[in-house]
Amino acid sequence: MSRVSLLSDLLGSIGARSWFHGEDGGKAISLPELAALCHKLVSSRGEATGVRLAADVLKGVRGLDDKAAKRFFHMLAEEFTPDAEALRGAASAYADNPGPDTLVELQRLAEAPRQELFRRLNLAPGGTAELVKLRERLLPFLRSDRERLGAVDADLRHLFQSWFNRGFLMLKPIDWDTPASVLEKIIRYEAVHAIGNWDELRQRLAPADRRCFGFFHPSIPDDPLIFVEVALTEDIPASIATVLDPDRAVLSPDAAQTAVFYSISNCHKGLAGVSFGSFLIKQVAEDLKETVPNLKTFVTLSPAPGFASWLSGLSADAVGSLEANEKRALAVIGEAGWSADPAKAEAARPGLLSLGARYYLRAKRGDGRPVDPVARFHLGNGAVLNRIMHLGDTSSSGLAQAHGLMVNYLYDLPRIEQRHEAYAADGEIAASRAVTALLPGRVGSHSMKDVA
Amino acid sequence: MSRVSLLSDLLGSIGARSWFHGEDGGKAISLPELAALCHKLVSSRGEATGVRLAADVLKGVRGLDDKAAKRFFHMLAEEFTPDAEALRGAASAYADNPGPDTLVELQRLAEAPRQELFRRLNLAPGGTAELVKLRERLLPFLRSDRERLGAVDADLRHLFQSWFNRGFLMLKPIDWDTPASVLEKIIRYEAVHAIGNWDELRQRLAPADRRCFGFFHPSIPDDPLIFVEVALTEDIPASIATVLDPDRAVLSPDAAQTAVFYSISNCHKGLAGVSFGSFLIKQVAEDLKETVPNLKTFVTLSPAPGFASWLSGLSADAVGSLEANEKRALAVIGEAGWSADPAKAEAARPGLLSLGARYYLRAKRGDGRPVDPVARFHLGNGAVLNRIMHLGDTSSSGLAQAHGLMVNYLYDLPRIEQRHEAYAADGEIAASRAVTALLPGRVGSHSMKDVA
Amino acid sequence: MSRVSLLSDLLGSIGARSWFHGEDGGKAISLPELAALCHKLVSSRGEATGVRLAADVLKGVRGLDDKAAKRFFHMLAEEFTPDAEALRGAASAYADNPGPDTLVELQRLAEAPRQELFRRLNLAPGGTAELVKLRERLLPFLRSDRERLGAVDADLRHLFQSWFNRGFLMLKPIDWDTPASVLEKIIRYEAVHAIGNWDELRQRLAPADRRCFGFFHPSIPDDPLIFVEVALTEDIPASIATVLDPDRAVLSPDAAQTAVFYSISNCHKGLAGVSFGSFLIKQVAEDLKETVPNLKTFVTLSPAPGFASWLSGLSADAVGSLEANEKRALAVIGEAGWSADPAKAEAARPGLLSLGARYYLRAKRGDGRPVDPVARFHLGNGAVLNRIMHLGDTSSSGLAQAHGLMVNYLYDLPRIEQRHEAYAADGEIAASRAVTALLPGRVGSHSMKDVA
Amino acid sequence: MSRVSLLSDLLGSIGARSWFHGEDGGKAISLPELAALCHKLVSSRGEATGVRLAADVLKGVRGLDDKAAKRFFHMLAEEFTPDAEALRGAASAYADNPGPDTLVELQRLAEAPRQELFRRLNLAPGGTAELVKLRERLLPFLRSDRERLGAVDADLRHLFQSWFNRGFLMLKPIDWDTPASVLEKIIRYEAVHAIGNWDELRQRLAPADRRCFGFFHPSIPDDPLIFVEVALTEDIPASIATVLDPDRAVLSPDAAQTAVFYSISNCHKGLAGVSFGSFLIKQVAEDLKETVPNLKTFVTLSPAPGFASWLSGLSADAVGSLEANEKRALAVIGEAGWSADPAKAEAARPGLLSLGARYYLRAKRGDGRPVDPVARFHLGNGAVLNRIMHLGDTSSSGLAQAHGLMVNYLYDLPRIEQRHEAYAADGEIAASRAVTALLPGRVGSHSMKDVA
Repeated sequence: MSRVSLLSDLLGSIGARSWFHGEDGGKAISLPELAALCHKLVSSRGEATGVRLAADVLKGVRGLDDKAAKRFFHMLAEEFTPDAEALRGAASAYADNPGPDTLVELQRLAEAPRQELFRRLNLAPGGTAELVKLRERLLPFLRSDRERLGAVDADLRHLFQSWFNRGFLMLKPIDWDTPASVLEKIIRYEAVHAIGNWDELRQRLAPADRRCFGFFHPSIPDDPLIFVEVALTEDIPASIATVLDPDRAVLSPDAAQTAVFYSISNCHKGLAGVSFGSFLIKQVAEDLKETVPNLKTFVTLSPAPGFASWLSGLSADAVGSLEANEKRALAVIGEAGWSADPAKAEAARPGLLSLGARYYLRAKRGDGRPVDPVARFHLGNGAVLNRIMHLGDTSSSGLAQAHGLMVNYLYDLPRIEQRHEAYAADGEIAASRAVTALLPGRVGSHSMKDVA
Repeated sequence: MSRVSLLSDLLGSIGARSWFHGEDGGKAISLPELAALCHKLVSSRGEATGVRLAADVLKGVRGLDDKAAKRFFHMLAEEFTPDAEALRGAASAYADNPGPDTLVELQRLAEAPRQELFRRLNLAPGGTAELVKLRERLLPFLRSDRERLGAVDADLRHLFQSWFNRGFLMLKPIDWDTPASVLEKIIRYEAVHAIGNWDELRQRLAPADRRCFGFFHPSIPDDPLIFVEVALTEDIPASIATVLDPDRAVLSPDAAQTAVFYSISNCHKGLAGVSFGSFLIKQVAEDLKETVPNLKTFVTLSPAPGFASWLSGLSADAVGSLEANEKRALAVIGEAGWSADPAKAEAARPGLLSLGARYYLRAKRGDGRPVDPVARFHLGNGAVLNRIMHLGDTSSSGLAQAHGLMVNYLYDLPRIEQRHEAYAADGEIAASRAVTALLPGRVGSHSMKDVA
Repeated sequence: MSRVSLLSDLLGSIGARSWFHGEDGGKAISLPELAALCHKLVSSRGEATGVRLAADVLKGVRGLDDKAAKRFFHMLAEEFTPDAEALRGAASAYADNPGPDTLVELQRLAEAPRQELFRRLNLAPGGTAELVKLRERLLPFLRSDRERLGAVDADLRHLFQSWFNRGFLMLKPIDWDTPASVLEKIIRYEAVHAIGNWDELRQRLAPADRRCFGFFHPSIPDDPLIFVEVALTEDIPASIATVLDPDRAVLSPDAAQTAVFYSISNCHKGLAGVSFGSFLIKQVAEDLKETVPNLKTFVTLSPAPGFASWLSGLSADAVGSLEANEKRALAVIGEAGWSADPAKAEAARPGLLSLGARYYLRAKRGDGRPVDPVARFHLGNGAVLNRIMHLGDTSSSGLAQAHGLMVNYLYDLPRIEQRHEAYAADGEIAASRAVTALLPGRVGSHSMKDVA
Repeated sequence: MSRVSLLSDLLGSIGARSWFHGEDGGKAISLPELAALCHKLVSSRGEATGVRLAADVLKGVRGLDDKAAKRFFHMLAEEFTPDAEALRGAASAYADNPGPDTLVELQRLAEAPRQELFRRLNLAPGGTAELVKLRERLLPFLRSDRERLGAVDADLRHLFQSWFNRGFLMLKPIDWDTPASVLEKIIRYEAVHAIGNWDELRQRLAPADRRCFGFFHPSIPDDPLIFVEVALTEDIPASIATVLDPDRAVLSPDAAQTAVFYSISNCHKGLAGVSFGSFLIKQVAEDLKETVPNLKTFVTLSPAPGFASWLSGLSADAVGSLEANEKRALAVIGEAGWSADPAKAEAARPGLLSLGARYYLRAKRGDGRPVDPVARFHLGNGAVLNRIMHLGDTSSSGLAQAHGLMVNYLYDLPRIEQRHEAYAADGEIAASRAVTALLPGRVGSHSMKDVA
């Protein structure tokens, strides 16, 4: 039924059409020509043929080499910036007489004309994805050129925060029935535990005790924005190797009590600063609760990416005041191959766990938040630091960045809001007793809270 | 294949889910409570539970009566407006020292906090549609209260111009295979030639020589934003009655040479000022060209909504200087039932057509544009005023607003851009020789151009 | 994702394509030409161009008037019947020497060549639906011509029993989101309680306490084979008027405890004798149990189509031996307008219910089964006769065929199999105590069984 | 729109549901129990709970080891065969008095009861696919036990010819947007030119100049029945290596003039003898003609599977009477590594081509048809033997079975029917002049026809 309507649903968005057309290989367009096309596109003259103009501009931009691209961004920064004189006038008028009329006029003049340019570029087939790629090209230039290009980036980020509003995103399962064209992107995007080939991918998606979900934007239907990989298990696993073991017995979903979020990957650099992760975890947890009947526990299996770096940065004084087992651990992990030697690994355990507890509960940035970026993310979402695991990740990267430590963050759905608030307002770090008990001396602090 | 993915495609947007849940009938929420929820939603505290908060706010707003709704909008105007002091400072800082940093700060402070509120309200299931309805409720208050509410409206319109960007819209055929839940909306939304019941709707959609297309937003998939009805014909029809005649012989699409756009309806008052019509006509024309092999002519069959009003507003002097046949026409159309009397109708013809030509080619607003709003729309799109038809619409509304006149605007695809520019730049009205020849005296003017 | 695959899914079956092509209006084909095409189609020569040949034959058949159609069926009966001589030989060979080889040869020769013709006609776009219509045309001729045409009909029925195997059918909800092209068929097909217009249809499908499901065949995706309408209620309703009342308060599905199957309609005469109803009811009951959380009771609201006829056929003796209240009821229902007069209606109640109990529990056909066809269907499915209702259907047809009686059959899912068997083996009629208690004298019989 | 309906479309067939349920691991069922379940399923008692019964039987059969499976088939052969006595009677009755009544009765009794058993097994989720697998298990037993099991196989084949009627099949593109779960089957099923891994698969599906299509049955939606791989090229390629070269320049589809069908694979042994290939090629050719604008030529690139075997079976006399260059070729191909040595390869060319022409045009089976099975298939479809290619396939299997020869069969759509007929009626082999010119002596024969 409704065949034609559905067809249209699937194909009808102008965006989707882009994939059916290859580059026609016409000759390159010069930067002045590109600038002229951009000006025409935002002018009233461009309205009648906006779709084609937008496509021409985007094609032209794709053809730019890095040097020309940088000049293109400079052009956007200079030629599509607010009219300083007019804006100054409006600013003064508002400063003299704040009110709705002066406000609306000030807002109108404060918006850079490139915002309208970006909106019109979106008319082109595949425009939304192209604009995301445009920002991906811009970002490297920012480091050395923030003064000139920062406002262009701010405009793109602002636009994307509006367009990629959570309310527009679609949560979709990614599984072995997903098109290969999407799955090959999953292999490419996986940022936490690399997927080596299609057989490994199948291991992540096809077994009955695995799940994967991504957020998609309707105008970029075949390319996820972010995705999370989930293992259904009985208990909370003690290491990533257990989770990824291809020879494990596959668990029947009906027997699963725990959902382990063991990998979350953002897919597009051009969307940096536009956050989806918090929504994704909560939405997936809600969905799993409805479809996997006996789930009780929602927990991450997360890296401790800053641990080794923090440890090596400790002052001599700080090292001197460590507990004996911590010093022993420091000695052990200085030896090559310690993690593969059971005796050495065991000797390092108490000290590493104790150091881990310090790292999570006491090490703070200037703003009073934890040093660990993953911790900031999950604690900010209202999760609890639930467990620190020795030898949780013995891959070379796991040893290099965290001496093998991994942690769980627990998402206790009914208490997420309260914990989020306590963290947001007071920087209070929710941690389980198992974690706080690892602290040497074991004295509580105002920024740490035991969790039953 | 890909069953689950598809399912998710269709259901997965949080927006779509709203339709599965009815109102749970809890008790009404007070205005101060609503305001508090709004503040919580935009605060960092609201992040963890944004979806539910947003749903609660929208539900609360739905329950407001008109008086309370007006107060709610006042609250938005006052409590979610930019911080005047801070903005004044940023405005001064920019005025003193225009540069990227002062600009970004000024932009940040110039954006009203209600923009972020609206973006977060979009988290709720069905949020996008609800926000459109929110503006529909706001618009009536604007007339008497523009001073206080104009900025709120400007914010919503600005947001919608970003969200309902043409690049996000899906063009979909609307036909007899479309779900009834959508079709009943077509009956309700049709604004030009009313559809009395389902049988009349079927007449508009099911025959092989009829087409209908609408723009849809992915977050409001079952409710069109705008739609156009098209008849496939051999020649350009001389009246709407011919087009709608249920007893006509249905034309095989292969024999169709002309596509007649005989009705275009915007569906949502809340999207006033967010324009889609121009894109819709061009996109549909492109699509028809590809799927109906022998189409050569794309033309509207349009009303002349301001003709009668313009005519009755002519000064005595102006009437005195009319041609004889024009005066005769004025006399005839003053008689009851003239249009149904062939002799009288014929007597009025030359004068009415001459007056029609004056109306379209010479009657101008203060800004130099035609008085007729439909003419402004199509000429602005780059169309040509092709023909003025006597007794094109003899329905009571057709006689009341235009003494039966209808017109065709011709969309000559290759020349649309050039005409759009000439109209945009110089107000040049593109009209066919058949139309210009109707002018008494037949002298050209700088704002009128013959079209071969 | 997978846009093209999906498209193909939806359009790819050759069957679906037929709806995009109209009749091309070529000239009619003669009967001998049709016969020649049929012979060519089953020959090896027809293999290369079977699709077109099949389409030509079906188009030719559509163009036949009734007289020619009858001659076409005679042609099928005579020219596409087994070779009598060869079959006689194979029959003798098998009779002489029953074994696998003689059996396969006998089977091969016993199958009429028209079976292969029908299978090849199915190659044409829309062929499956056309073949169903072909049998619809055949059925009226059978009455007077069973001798010649019965074997043709037997072949079609046999084929359809294979093709429309329950395993191939799709159960689909039919609701207000269903395409109008399907819904207009529901209006047309509804056979029990007529649907007068689209507003009445909406009343049956759109409210939250209504459900409708149909079986569809994948090759006829936009035309149901059979459908059932369901009301979700708190209690078992006492009349159809209660169920259809447009002014009732709509029940929240969460509050529904009872699913009432109040209308089941077969859609295609050409599928007579190919039964789906039993599967449909059980499947829908299973589905509702999963999606409507608090459902406890599955029950029909059914007509008593043979009651009035049975009553008027009672012999004088039989009438003479009725109970007093039964005789009174007979007298009352002889008066015009009795059902609208509360006193009369009440006076008739006990007698009518008693007569109803006799009708259901004692009136038998020659084969020992109940006289009532609806009873045979539901009892054969394993349902229980649960209640007999006075004035359950006071429409003119309800009064004419059943003096207003309606009944409920209860589907007690766990006990369906056992009751089906008892009915199938012994003709045992499962009836509730409420029904058996209505019997005058109240003596049990071996063919009636009390149900707790 | 129509979300729920669509969902049902996709999931609603009972068949599709099977994939969501794993085996529940209950204990094995004995053969007598299985037989009892089968008898119950076909009995009237089985009607009420057919779905579950059918699932139980199929699950039981899956659990049988080979020995038990053979006994299960014997059980079907013996306990579900026609009643020999009754059939003998009906056969005699028909033999005595051939007419519609005796015919219908004879047909009824000649059909083995296992046909009804198979139809009812189809009630189970996934039943259709299971029945196909059932026949796959049966086939190996046939070789040694055709006497007892041949009739069971005949019944299954007959049933599948009805169920897998071309009119029910869906042609679907298989491409890089197809679900991975389907694509991994393509890797497994490819029978002509093996696909080693996912990268090779991508090479076959993703480039713009590649196409792949399969036939699917609606009840087995994620498993193709047969598929064909197509290369779009400018000219007819001279070898399979050219076609599969991963380093070739990808051709724009707009530049393609030739569609090369270079691999056709049947996917299910259980469907042996149920032919789809002819339909597939023609349907794909029709579709390509509509979607690839400049295609002019439709041609296969086919193996010559029987050539080496035919050659080695030539009698000494036959070898003795070969032409000189043929004898030279025989000598060359006896040397190891000849095909990789340009001089030797060139020396063998004329003789091998000449021998190839003999093989295709003169070598006949007992029934007068070509020895080569691929030739019988394509010539039977109405194709022309267009070219014989030296060193078309230098893979080890290509050398082993055909000394490197490959051939093209040309599908000249307008002339397919006529050629099919000439081949079907007279065994006439349509061959191009290029092929017939290779014959030594070059004398025409009645069974060979030059093609302009």
